[in-house]
Amino acid sequence: MFIPEKLLSKEKEHVKGFSPEVAWVTEAGNSKLAERLAIRPTSETIMYASFSKWIKSWKDLPLKLNQWNNVVRWEFKHPVPFLRTREFLWNEGHTVFATKEEAESERNEIIGIYKHIVEDYMGLYGLIGKKSDKEKFAGAEYTISMEYLLPNGKAVQGPDFHHDGQNFAKAFDIKFLDKNEKKQYAWQNTFAISTRMLGIMIAVHSDNKGFVLPPRLAENQVVIIPIFKKEDKEKIIRKAKEISSELKKYNPIIDHREEYSPGWKFNEWELKGIPIRIELGPRDLKNKEVVLVRRDNGEKKNIKFTNLKKEIEKTLESIQADLLNHSKENLERNIKEVGSIQELKKVVSGKKIAFAPFCNDPKCEEDIKYQTNGAKTLNAPLNQGRINKKCIGCGKEAREMFYFGKSY
Amino acid sequence: MFIPEKLLSKEKEHVKGFSPEVAWVTEAGNSKLAERLAIRPTSETIMYASFSKWIKSWKDLPLKLNQWNNVVRWEFKHPVPFLRTREFLWNEGHTVFATKEEAESERNEIIGIYKHIVEDYMGLYGLIGKKSDKEKFAGAEYTISMEYLLPNGKAVQGPDFHHDGQNFAKAFDIKFLDKNEKKQYAWQNTFAISTRMLGIMIAVHSDNKGFVLPPRLAENQVVIIPIFKKEDKEKIIRKAKEISSELKKYNPIIDHREEYSPGWKFNEWELKGIPIRIELGPRDLKNKEVVLVRRDNGEKKNIKFTNLKKEIEKTLESIQADLLNHSKENLERNIKEVGSIQELKKVVSGKKIAFAPFCNDPKCEEDIKYQTNGAKTLNAPLNQGRINKKCIGCGKEAREMFYFGKSY
Repeated sequence: MFIPEKLLSKEKEHVKGFSPEVAWVTEAGNSKLAERLAIRPTSETIMYASFSKWIKSWKDLPLKLNQWNNVVRWEFKHPVPFLRTREFLWNEGHTVFATKEEAESERNEIIGIYKHIVEDYMGLYGLIGKKSDKEKFAGAEYTISMEYLLPNGKAVQGPDFHHDGQNFAKAFDIKFLDKNEKKQYAWQNTFAISTRMLGIMIAVHSDNKGFVLPPRLAENQVVIIPIFKKEDKEKIIRKAKEISSELKKYNPIIDHREEYSPGWKFNEWELKGIPIRIELGPRDLKNKEVVLVRRDNGEKKNIKFTNLKKEIEKTLESIQADLLNHSKENLERNIKEVGSIQELKKVVSGKKIAFAPFCNDPKCEEDIKYQTNGAKTLNAPLNQGRINKKCIGCGKEAREMFYFGKSY
Repeated sequence: MFIPEKLLSKEKEHVKGFSPEVAWVTEAGNSKLAERLAIRPTSETIMYASFSKWIKSWKDLPLKLNQWNNVVRWEFKHPVPFLRTREFLWNEGHTVFATKEEAESERNEIIGIYKHIVEDYMGLYGLIGKKSDKEKFAGAEYTISMEYLLPNGKAVQGPDFHHDGQNFAKAFDIKFLDKNEKKQYAWQNTFAISTRMLGIMIAVHSDNKGFVLPPRLAENQVVIIPIFKKEDKEKIIRKAKEISSELKKYNPIIDHREEYSPGWKFNEWELKGIPIRIELGPRDLKNKEVVLVRRDNGEKKNIKFTNLKKEIEKTLESIQADLLNHSKENLERNIKEVGSIQELKKVVSGKKIAFAPFCNDPKCEEDIKYQTNGAKTLNAPLNQGRINKKCIGCGKEAREMFYFGKSY
């Protein structure tokens, strides 16, 4: 977790980008340390010092590592749980290749993995594109990111992939003997996904009753609430258990606590976001059916015992698909193409994302941010081809369209 | 990861025990912090401040949490990889109960889980017992530990379980309304297992060729090494793949790299500890057999293709059982009962564990440590009943027999 100050400082852009938010250990027990230790804000500089010892030959490449760990970035303003915290957990990947081509060909694979997890499990649709030169990772040649829109109108960055070129290899002397016995600097990528995604998921899939948990991530996909008075307790609970074992695949909870009322329990499990609630009372039992309630849209249906399993399967799939669709519709509905900085300001102040031609000059981006009370580029869609427009900031040639928003 | 100095200091024995080895964050970015932050050496004091807000009623109990995380304890002498490092990873458990009885009845469950993992998976046999009053966890009423012996004659502590009584509950004001609406302090346990166990496992199950990986923990239980010249390459590799798919259950590696010799590969996979090596050359192919080599004892056998699967299964079970048996025999062979401090000194200097009557007075333990150049208590077996002996340190009544050793 500790990076000696000397190592953190080896790559110039990197230390410039991260040092303003580094937490420093200066004392241990009762002693002052001779050299300050940074708590890692990201692990390149501590890992790559070792990479330079491990990598000697083309036979050692590619090297592919990833780790789950905590990092610290000292925020001085407005920490927001999950979205912007001083300590967070993430999975960071670090790969080293013999050629630029091999390194860059990893991009689609990694972004594909992230897209799969985030869309197919978390039900979140995002904008995939290249970060601006101002907002790219400090030390990278370029950064590909996935960007999300929260219900409060703020954008937030999700997973990212950085192609580092030979920047770190040169700073940390990561060289290898190629097949012709020639020394070469290696080519590197860095990428990460963090627990921030949980914050985005909670923000996007919640309503006034609480959280809506995507079925594929739900430890318990079903909660069964038996509703009984003393005289029919035994019968009802017996049937609830029967249903539970029939639905075992969905790892159901039976909530038969007697110290709480059915209404209290409905609220409790809605708050926690369990995808499907099954209610079973005396009348249901008589009719050989249950009441099935969808957490996401509140829809209620009476379902015969014999159809229950099939209905659960169908409903879970439908909830999972609807969450992603709503996320996608909501994002697309809130993107507006603009042609001037006044329009851009209006759009981002209206809690939407603007899409605008931009020159990608860091100074121009600084200027746009100032003029719009804080709009930043999110990213630029990939494979746009050349466009023929003027930058909304400086009026010079704009090679690409960028998304802009107020963001965490 | 951060604990404000104020919170760390709330339980007196706890802060006394840990503060000499705490790493302190005092600066962030370019600012001095108003209050020093400890990097957690263990998480009681940061978690329990929250427990006191979460726990209001008997309905909130028991509370059972565990987390995998990193902790920092600043060693000023001889860090040893895995065994004694400044940062280490562990799983810490924290449980809160309404009564002392409930809390203490968790002890056997937790120790049972640790014993299962360590014996049945890691193949390591240890001494289970109660730590001395001097060596128990700072803040606990008592500590149960598991202790191991390394090939270098040093003992080392493995997982532990602490019953904290109401010590932390009183320091952190963890109170609940019981069923009679009366406020009560809660009862707590803490327990942990760390990556130190990997160090112990590597030390115990290694030989001059490298590591011996217990089969149940081996990602790849079998490595297949095809041995071929150009003319029979295709045939041999085809058969190796056939064997590999037959042995799929054991997730075999086929090492058919041509840039390395078979001998080089044997060494490589022995170093990494793969439990079983299968060699397949032209003559083996003709005889419809392979050479099967056990990593743990080097035993070689020719096995017909038709018997291979059964033989692998049997051999893996045998390796797993033998590792635990050797660990147990080695431990038991190296324990010697002693009746005087001179004998104790001789035994622990001879790289063994001594078993001796001891009064359990921290001052007496300090004295024994001084007189023996560093022998410490490991633990005392549980359920000994009363013994009728004199303490080897001070000659006063000794209620229990303790294990002593030089330890990490």
